[in-house]
Parts: sequence; structure tokens; C-alpha cells
Amino acid sequence: MLKHADTLDRLKKIQGQIGGIIRMVEDGSYCIDIVNQISAVRGGLDKVTLMVLEKHLKSCVSSAIKEDHPDAVIEELMGTIQRYIK
Amino acid sequence: MLKHADTLDRLKKIQGQIGGIIRMVEDGSYCIDIVNQISAVRGGLDKVTLMVLEKHLKSCVSSAIKEDHPDAVIEELMGTIQRYIK
Amino acid sequence: MLKHADTLDRLKKIQGQIGGIIRMVEDGSYCIDIVNQISAVRGGLDKVTLMVLEKHLKSCVSSAIKEDHPDAVIEELMGTIQRYIK
Amino acid sequence: MLKHADTLDRLKKIQGQIGGIIRMVEDGSYCIDIVNQISAVRGGLDKVTLMVLEKHLKSCVSSAIKEDHPDAVIEELMGTIQRYIK
Repeated sequence: MLKHADTLDRLKKIQGQIGGIIRMVEDGSYCIDIVNQISAVRGGLDKVTLMVLEKHLKSCVSSAIKEDHPDAVIEELMGTIQRYIK
Repeated sequence: MLKHADTLDRLKKIQGQIGGIIRMVEDGSYCIDIVNQISAVRGGLDKVTLMVLEKHLKSCVSSAIKEDHPDAVIEELMGTIQRYIK
Repeated sequence: MLKHADTLDRLKKIQGQIGGIIRMVEDGSYCIDIVNQISAVRGGLDKVTLMVLEKHLKSCVSSAIKEDHPDAVIEELMGTIQRYIK
Repeated sequence: MLKHADTLDRLKKIQGQIGGIIRMVEDGSYCIDIVNQISAVRGGLDKVTLMVLEKHLKSCVSSAIKEDHPDAVIEELMGTIQRYIK
């Protein structure tokens, strides 16, 4: 279970950045500026992902390993990482 | 200049997805589900980026090439692509 | 510790693909064909990375978790994943 | 057409790095060290890709734009960038 003030703050900042990109498109801003803003949002999302994965490793994955049934949880985690880097 | 209904629709959908992820975090949803949602948002951002870059190639980059001063625009574009894939 | 015939086969295939890309550059092949080959190599590297990370989770990370000293190993793993997705 | 000493040097360095990773796997090196090496190779491939794309923009794409038949070349380029960032 994940309930993080820091994670929420970052996501709300990202939501605001997306709003800003919407306005840039509406205003007909220069394309390069728009893509650079999207890059920044992408970087912010990566940071949130890493925080969530770390939390998952320290909670659900650790419990499954301690209780000797790690395979399904590790396989699930690897599938998620694969989707993310693809 | 970029002013696309389709681009705006996608960005507004992404903004909504981020709102959904915020609620997932607030509700203490399963970490893997959260990361998979972020992957989906990331994919959506990639699509918008490709649309914006294509528009840029067909407008500003093409004009600079036709007017025989392409270097600065191409260098700027490459810097943006580099930031994006890094 | 990782000692996988499948991993080695994939890496040797990638090494061969890089050789092929070198010949494409030497032969002055079409740029797009070269970049598409690099994309294929990148995908192959991602696959190897996932295999190695899975092995690591099932060995070193699991041992550290069972022996109740997971933090350093998890932190190290997250740093590696961060470098990879950046 | 691309025929770059610098590009070839980088690709040959990458080929050597892959050889090094093969030896690490054969020697049973620590998984994290292997993945970090793969990250370095990935970064090197990105650099080569950017060099090749820049060359393509300055040659084939520029010619097609000047000769007023840019659409197919731009569409091809966007497809390649999409495959690369996916």
C-alpha cells in the first residue's frame, strides 16, 4: 500500500505542468518549447515511478520473499519494469 | 506554431489520467497498478511528442531548410530529441 | 552471481548486430536503416537487463531481505534502475 | 549516406564494451555491475543514433524538403523516432 505526501506533491505538480502544456498548445507556442516541457514531465513521472517501485520492494516484495512465495511477485515486478522501459 | 485539437484532446486525457493516479495514491492502491498507469501516461506523452515534432519538421524546420539556414534549427531539434531519449 | 547460457547467447547476438551496424556505416547505408538496427539492439539489451535484474532479485536481493538487511541492496537496485530509465 | 570515422569509433567501442559484458557474465560478475555496464552501452548507442539522425536531417530530409516532396521522408523519420523512444 502506498500513501505518500511527497509522491502526491510530485503528481500534483505534474498535473499542473500538463495544464501548462495545454495552455502552450492553445497559445500556439513554439513546438520545441512544448516538447522540452513534456521531457520535464516525463522526468518527473520517472521519479514518482522509482519512489513507488522502492516502496513496493520494501513492502509487498519483501513480505513475499520472507514468506517464501516470491516468484509471482517478482515476475509481476519484472513485467511492470519491462512495460516501463519499453 | 502548433494548435491541434487532437493534441489538446490527448493532453487533457493525460491530465485526467494523472488525476486518477493521484486518487490511486490517496486510496493506497497497489503499487504495481500505479506504475502501470504511469507507463500508460508516459506512452501517451510520447505520442503527443511525436505529433509535435512532426508538426515542427513540417513547419519551422522545413522553412529554415528552404531558406538555407538549417543548422541552428536542426541543432535545436537534435538537442530536444537528445533530452527526450535520455 | 549470474552465469546464463541464454544471457550469453543474447549478448553474443548483440555483439554480432553491432558488427553488422559497423559494416552498414562503412558501406554508407541509409541512415534510417542504421537507426532501426540500433533500435533492435537497444531492445535486445533491454531484454538482457530484465533477465539480469530478475536473477538479482531472486538471489542477492532475496538473501538480503531474508537476512533483514535489505536497505543497501534495495537502494543500490533503485539507483541502477534509475540510471537505466534515465 | 553516412560514412563517419567518429560514428565508427563509437560503434567499435560499443562492440568492445559488449565483449566486456560477455566476460562479466562468464565470470559470474555482480548483476548490478553488469546492468550498469549495459546502461553505459545504451547511452553510447543513443549518442550514435543522434549523430546518424542529425546527418539524415542535413542530407536526405533536407533534399526532400528542398525538392518539395517531404512527406514520405518525414513520415519515415517519425516512425524511426517512435520505434526508438518506445
